[in-house]
Amino acid sequence: MNPSAAPQMFRAVDVIRKKRDGLELSREEIEALVHGYTNDEIPDYQLSAWLMAVVLRGMTRAETAALTDAMLRSGEVLDLSSLPQRKVDKHSTGGVGDKTSLVLAPLVAAAGVAVPMISGRGLGHTGGTLDKLESIPGFNVNLSVAEFRRVLETCGCAMIGQTAEIAPADRKLYALRDVTGTVESPYLICASIMSKKLAEGIDALLLDVKTGSGAFMKSEKDAAFLAELMVETGERMGKRTVALITGMDQPLGIMIGNALEVVEVLDVLRGLGPADLRELCIELGGWMLHMGGVSKSLAEGKHRSAELIASGKALEKFRQMIELQGGDFRVVDNTQRLPQSRHTMDVASSRAGYLASMQCEQIGTACVILGGGRGRKEDSIDPAVGIILHKKVGDRVAVGEPIATIHYNSQAQAEQAKRLIESSCHVGDAPPASKRPLIHNVIENSAEKN
Amino acid sequence: MNPSAAPQMFRAVDVIRKKRDGLELSREEIEALVHGYTNDEIPDYQLSAWLMAVVLRGMTRAETAALTDAMLRSGEVLDLSSLPQRKVDKHSTGGVGDKTSLVLAPLVAAAGVAVPMISGRGLGHTGGTLDKLESIPGFNVNLSVAEFRRVLETCGCAMIGQTAEIAPADRKLYALRDVTGTVESPYLICASIMSKKLAEGIDALLLDVKTGSGAFMKSEKDAAFLAELMVETGERMGKRTVALITGMDQPLGIMIGNALEVVEVLDVLRGLGPADLRELCIELGGWMLHMGGVSKSLAEGKHRSAELIASGKALEKFRQMIELQGGDFRVVDNTQRLPQSRHTMDVASSRAGYLASMQCEQIGTACVILGGGRGRKEDSIDPAVGIILHKKVGDRVAVGEPIATIHYNSQAQAEQAKRLIESSCHVGDAPPASKRPLIHNVIENSAEKN
Repeated sequence: MNPSAAPQMFRAVDVIRKKRDGLELSREEIEALVHGYTNDEIPDYQLSAWLMAVVLRGMTRAETAALTDAMLRSGEVLDLSSLPQRKVDKHSTGGVGDKTSLVLAPLVAAAGVAVPMISGRGLGHTGGTLDKLESIPGFNVNLSVAEFRRVLETCGCAMIGQTAEIAPADRKLYALRDVTGTVESPYLICASIMSKKLAEGIDALLLDVKTGSGAFMKSEKDAAFLAELMVETGERMGKRTVALITGMDQPLGIMIGNALEVVEVLDVLRGLGPADLRELCIELGGWMLHMGGVSKSLAEGKHRSAELIASGKALEKFRQMIELQGGDFRVVDNTQRLPQSRHTMDVASSRAGYLASMQCEQIGTACVILGGGRGRKEDSIDPAVGIILHKKVGDRVAVGEPIATIHYNSQAQAEQAKRLIESSCHVGDAPPASKRPLIHNVIENSAEKN
Repeated sequence: MNPSAAPQMFRAVDVIRKKRDGLELSREEIEALVHGYTNDEIPDYQLSAWLMAVVLRGMTRAETAALTDAMLRSGEVLDLSSLPQRKVDKHSTGGVGDKTSLVLAPLVAAAGVAVPMISGRGLGHTGGTLDKLESIPGFNVNLSVAEFRRVLETCGCAMIGQTAEIAPADRKLYALRDVTGTVESPYLICASIMSKKLAEGIDALLLDVKTGSGAFMKSEKDAAFLAELMVETGERMGKRTVALITGMDQPLGIMIGNALEVVEVLDVLRGLGPADLRELCIELGGWMLHMGGVSKSLAEGKHRSAELIASGKALEKFRQMIELQGGDFRVVDNTQRLPQSRHTMDVASSRAGYLASMQCEQIGTACVILGGGRGRKEDSIDPAVGIILHKKVGDRVAVGEPIATIHYNSQAQAEQAKRLIESSCHVGDAPPASKRPLIHNVIENSAEKN
């Protein structure tokens, strides 16, 4: 027994203590922790103590980048260099009615920029891109990497779920964070998002960071902090990264629910759809085309995006992607082929006035209650159910006039969702003082960037 | 799926999040967490996240008492009401050469106060009472609760190790804290100590909180904070509790090592031994007799303690306890019956002057290197090895004069221990400015006490 002569080997407990004491970890320490955990050499109980220390002590920018990099390199990094186009992706931090990914992937691909999009499922009050796509009969989001590459090569965009090969550390860490109260850390959120996205082999990434009552980051300040963190992390890793901070104080567009949101996506791709959703898609599309190098400016990118919708080229690209991923592409021309709920029920206003505000998270929860989202990861979802809004914040409303229509398959669920929607919509005497633009801010480079 | 109508059941993750956010937990939440963990219903990875949140967020006094109580009630609480005497125990937070428990148990029992002492083993640089007792051939520290009671009834004191029945939550939590960087929290240390001690069925508890280079609490401030926390927790649980803050900037007494410390205990019980150890034993004994109700004042208790040593009654009680616990009681009259090392080696001073300071933890580590302590829980120890100091801080030393003698069985270990002792003893030109008394402070009632 000779403690002072013990070899200087990596001990997880030392790294935990260092972070607990507020010291900065080295890249090597973070790598050893992440790789040891991914390889089952470091137990859950050590990682969870470390995660809590990170939540309460924070991380430096260098630590955040090292964590992102270690998680990224825990699995496969796609090599898409065989595709001649630039590769650009977009990620949203999640909201209610946010279906922009389904518009943007085909739109941007139609302009000659590849979009290799790996997305997630809905959890909590927010919807998920994969669930929306799967409401299209036959659409397969579980492609192998080889199939993903083939779809990309053929039509320039592909949308799949996270594969076992991509950032396995994130998958394992996320499951642990979920049950240990360590989800709510901008550093961990940043590393989780960025490790998956940068494993896609992209050249540039556009981030849509939501803020407001329907977002995970309720405050503008928290959203801006996360956005800056992700932009700096992306830039540190050599990828052009831009973040838009956008409002989520009410659902985006007017449809919430998986098949309903596909209907609304088709509306937008046909040049229709509600103004807020349409405008955000044009804005995000403009950024992606600019970052993808096919438009010289944001303004030109936005103009080009609008053209690709007007010409029907974006819609045609969507139809092609659906077909390549095994889906029933006839939904593009006939939305009756999408799952339909058996019943509908109106939610009427009990008074006249103006829709002053919505508690947006509750609208999302109402959709979950209908069966359109998940309370637990293992829950299955009903693609047909959802909510169509007839009023947005600022709109005039008469007494007894429908604010929303519920699409449902279970009467009891519908009644409960109805009460929740009623309680979340506040009708006042006057219109809200000022309507804030949907796009609050654009974050391109943090001050710390070298 | 209906999240809003889910039953309000206990979820560990909610309690973790609450503590993470700095909120106060209820007694019920703490109980559910501790009992769920003890019953293997809550996994390690949730407890370790919670422990880290406690380390970084702290606890209120009410939470600390609730945690102590839940850990205490995770197992058996001894009912010693069949013993007519008052029951008093003493606990030390650990140091180098601290063998006062072996003096105090028989001394206090000789005065008619019962001492049901459940102790621990050495870990790190500090020694453990059980290891010292086990250097007496045959001495059995692993008594059942029934045997423990019988020894107590016969001679008024008994010294054993923690049984499986006492505070199992502490055993499980301590093992987890050890590997998750969550040992160093005064709240968790307090709950760990107090839950075990109050499970002994005692009326009063004396705490010896060590501070200095050989203690776990290096700073006076940290020691005082822990002392106040333990005193208030004890008083909240209806037990008279007093804490002494005592210096541990150099070893207590002159002998370090298990059998050597038994020799020094016998010296003190015969009215001999070094002044610092003798005086601390008289002081602690005085408090225990006063708290045990057999002396009207501390001064009277100290006087009585000195008498019990001078009369040989304390020594006689020690002999009786050794015999009742199966040990070779002839060691009392012949210390050659204790394990003896094969070799000795002097550590000489390289210069003349005054012993200005010792790095006390290093002296403890030197003893561990010799085989007298444990680097890991599973290590076995050599009872015969250790260190005898010939100089204490402030003593004059000549060039080449021995500062210490090492008792060893392995030459390589001895050489390494020698270098460590040399580097830890600083000999200066002048004696240290002022010698601080060993007892720094007495803490009886914290201000918050109701």
